[in-house]
Amino acid sequence: MDGISRVAAGNGRAERLRMRQGLFTGPTSGLAPGNVQANLVILPKALAHDFLRFAQANPRPCPVLGVTEAGDPRLPALGEDLDLRTDLPRYRVWRNGELVEEPTDISHLWRDDLVGFAIGCSFSFEEALIEDGIEVRHIACDTNVPMYRTNIDCVPAGVFHGKLVVSMRPMKPADAIRAVQITSRFPSVHGAPVHLGLPEQIGITDIAKPDYGDAVPVHEGELPVFWACGVTPQAVIAQAKPAFCITHAPGCMLITDLRNTSLAAL
Amino acid sequence: MDGISRVAAGNGRAERLRMRQGLFTGPTSGLAPGNVQANLVILPKALAHDFLRFAQANPRPCPVLGVTEAGDPRLPALGEDLDLRTDLPRYRVWRNGELVEEPTDISHLWRDDLVGFAIGCSFSFEEALIEDGIEVRHIACDTNVPMYRTNIDCVPAGVFHGKLVVSMRPMKPADAIRAVQITSRFPSVHGAPVHLGLPEQIGITDIAKPDYGDAVPVHEGELPVFWACGVTPQAVIAQAKPAFCITHAPGCMLITDLRNTSLAAL
Repeated sequence: MDGISRVAAGNGRAERLRMRQGLFTGPTSGLAPGNVQANLVILPKALAHDFLRFAQANPRPCPVLGVTEAGDPRLPALGEDLDLRTDLPRYRVWRNGELVEEPTDISHLWRDDLVGFAIGCSFSFEEALIEDGIEVRHIACDTNVPMYRTNIDCVPAGVFHGKLVVSMRPMKPADAIRAVQITSRFPSVHGAPVHLGLPEQIGITDIAKPDYGDAVPVHEGELPVFWACGVTPQAVIAQAKPAFCITHAPGCMLITDLRNTSLAAL
Repeated sequence: MDGISRVAAGNGRAERLRMRQGLFTGPTSGLAPGNVQANLVILPKALAHDFLRFAQANPRPCPVLGVTEAGDPRLPALGEDLDLRTDLPRYRVWRNGELVEEPTDISHLWRDDLVGFAIGCSFSFEEALIEDGIEVRHIACDTNVPMYRTNIDCVPAGVFHGKLVVSMRPMKPADAIRAVQITSRFPSVHGAPVHLGLPEQIGITDIAKPDYGDAVPVHEGELPVFWACGVTPQAVIAQAKPAFCITHAPGCMLITDLRNTSLAAL
């Protein structure tokens, strides 16, 4: 392990420790720069296999970075000490599709049959875009990324089915081409865009009215560029209304020891 | 050398032999499938260095596959027996910027100070697009690719300067994204698109009126995708009006022994 990785792992672990101790309960954007952050889904084992099949069949919206053993809250491949019960700032607990609790620790809810999934997040490729000098509009505006439900069906698996949700970043055409190249290198964090330029073609009728997140301005001479979004599996799970499920609270991600750069395929 | 390469080299050499013997004088599109075809520019040594500097500074429109020694008509790296004086179906001879002759052999014009340049051509990446199942409109229409002079200045070098010329292929957005990925693998044959979606931004006011080649239909739900074009160096040379210059005749390319697949960077 080289010096940079060691420092980074330290930062990731340090942030997880703060959360484990209940000292930080907010959004994780900007914490442990360069480290991979992940969406969290926890499901009972009875549903876990179908969910993993759903992810396998829909890797663009649902790229799986890690899956726990049933009942084991650890994911050592993403962080040696990592404990999914305590290491996120805030969780959402769902029963029969209803949000029932937003705790900062889920130790009291842990069960022997629970399986945790860490799912790639666009933070990783946004870092690569910014390092290449491409403006990411919602970051420049300091708002949430705008997200839209499309008319594209995900491949169903068991109880899990629904429409693809996409995030949108407006860009000049040359930046959009460069963004395709950059994000193609990161298949485990949504990869290349799924669409650009003609939102109505994928069922988006008003770019100023996202279904999730906040609208951002699309300037003259820019194209809207759309990526498959990690909100897709969340929306699909909400629709499936499992008897029990835990996710991260919006923006309160799992911070891993992986470096974003280590996810690059090329 | 594996079996496929040997057969392909044979096809390339067989085609060159037909041309050397004056048995074929037409366009080369479709000949020796899978082999790299190249644009040809021949300039006196006094201008060759500036032209090579121009190419080095403008690799998207002017990707150099090979340069001869002054006075030597061979390019063994592109074909062991290859002779630039005889192996193209038809040439154009220019004096002070004027087209003076279209011979099928330039042996009578060869001089000890001439330098030949083989420049990459879009045939190579079009083959990769088609093999990926993407329709290339002008091939489907059996016409010449539409080309446009843009408002983008090339980087000048000596007497060589001018505007970037681009070729256009209309595509559905998802195909355009895939085409960025595919053509990014081929930097020595123009590489990724330079623009897409908003032609007016690069000075193209009427997509139905190309400056070179033929118009093709852009269907509802398609974006125009633009690549840097090998006509750029030809236009730049025409503007520089060198005392003497030889090029290939339009569509009558140099067939090499290189395989298109061997140009893939990844």
